[in-house]
Amino acid sequence: MTTDITPTELRAQIRSGQWTTPTSGAATGFLQANLVMLPRSLAFEFLLFCTRNPKPCPVLDVLAPGQTEPAIAPGADLTTDLPRYRLYRSGQLTDEVTDVRPFFENDTVSFLLGCSFSFENAMLAAGLPVRNIAEDKNVSMYITNRTCRPAEPFEAPLVVTMRPMTPEQAIRAVQVTTRYHQTHGAPIHVGDPAELGIRDLNKPDFGDPVTIHPGEIPVFWACGVTSSLAVTAAKLDLVMTHAPGHMFVSDLRDEHMTIM
Amino acid sequence: MTTDITPTELRAQIRSGQWTTPTSGAATGFLQANLVMLPRSLAFEFLLFCTRNPKPCPVLDVLAPGQTEPAIAPGADLTTDLPRYRLYRSGQLTDEVTDVRPFFENDTVSFLLGCSFSFENAMLAAGLPVRNIAEDKNVSMYITNRTCRPAEPFEAPLVVTMRPMTPEQAIRAVQVTTRYHQTHGAPIHVGDPAELGIRDLNKPDFGDPVTIHPGEIPVFWACGVTSSLAVTAAKLDLVMTHAPGHMFVSDLRDEHMTIM
Repeated sequence: MTTDITPTELRAQIRSGQWTTPTSGAATGFLQANLVMLPRSLAFEFLLFCTRNPKPCPVLDVLAPGQTEPAIAPGADLTTDLPRYRLYRSGQLTDEVTDVRPFFENDTVSFLLGCSFSFENAMLAAGLPVRNIAEDKNVSMYITNRTCRPAEPFEAPLVVTMRPMTPEQAIRAVQVTTRYHQTHGAPIHVGDPAELGIRDLNKPDFGDPVTIHPGEIPVFWACGVTSSLAVTAAKLDLVMTHAPGHMFVSDLRDEHMTIM
Repeated sequence: MTTDITPTELRAQIRSGQWTTPTSGAATGFLQANLVMLPRSLAFEFLLFCTRNPKPCPVLDVLAPGQTEPAIAPGADLTTDLPRYRLYRSGQLTDEVTDVRPFFENDTVSFLLGCSFSFENAMLAAGLPVRNIAEDKNVSMYITNRTCRPAEPFEAPLVVTMRPMTPEQAIRAVQVTTRYHQTHGAPIHVGDPAELGIRDLNKPDFGDPVTIHPGEIPVFWACGVTSSLAVTAAKLDLVMTHAPGHMFVSDLRDEHMTIM
């Protein structure tokens, strides 16, 4: 884990193939983003899906068709500057690659969506526990019984991340993460996993289980994986996304996107 | 001014032709919205323009092509339930009508955008002056020297509203309106009109001038009229919007859309 590297340096290392691992903990303090690339013909519907579901799918930037340089990172190239990409054809994961230039078309539209890495840093700064970081695990993610507002052909259940803490810490976490409305914001539930249709916290649908200490309650936030489920459920000819944990690192500081 | 009427009653009166005047002050506490209707072929670009300029163009709801019943007001019909509409052809205002059913097509997409009426109520509740309401005038609006992030073919200068108050009141107004991020949120400037390219506060580009008392400074908020300039500048065959002050009244309470 290197925290001193700048976003520009990190993207250069990724582009040249020197950096191939997840971006968690790299260029700390700079906004990281989920990536979705799909054809212009469905760009309105997908942007509509995100607009209708801003907690799991907060839009940080949308590029014009065929463009690869996002406004939030001048000089960057979304087709080469993520360490790992996933390709889905007809809703099935078919490839993981480190460069999507061969698949990027003139009508491909790129979406960058907020990521919870931003508020995890803020929670650590506030002295709150982030168990997945403390235990060096991927955050626990669960598919819930709540459905997003659809925007045909995009639909998905709400996916959440979970971080255990005491009730007092949960109150503080609500305050701290509310500021980060562009990166999932305040929690969507605290306390009872069954309310969300989650049967066993030790068996997350994605990521790893983490330790829950006595006296701690689970705190649930909307999760960007929701957008991945939506695009794969739509069974497009081709959709490209970042590979889990291998995010796009922008030039904006996490603080930039806070509401206050 | 009737404050006791419910949104459902108000929309029924509008639909039947009984209510033909502006909606300011009606159904107090319920969210009112700017309306833009344009063809599906440019819906992505316009939604992108709004996404890129969330302060002047906060998206409350977007309907599927050909649909007229918004999620934020079940049973309502956007083609009949506003007191007055404007039709623009090739960027020119050609008609004002009270019913757009004759012009609404299967591929027409309706956008509802946040309106500052929501935070004006909150400011009054906080004891802050809202001069335009006190003087029974339309709020002062100015075209600034700041440009929105374009989304071709949509581009526009940022339009702002202005309300004068003391510096101490301005600080409180920042706090109060920050919660209303879906209805323009915190101010974008305080103090110096010249910084925004505004030469004379007594000559607003839209609306009426209001009294500025000694010791007061102008406080500027992003304004939904920005979206009207963007759609008319694009010179589409046909765009429909609400007429100024004649908004859509939803079933959501203003409090519903606050971030906390």
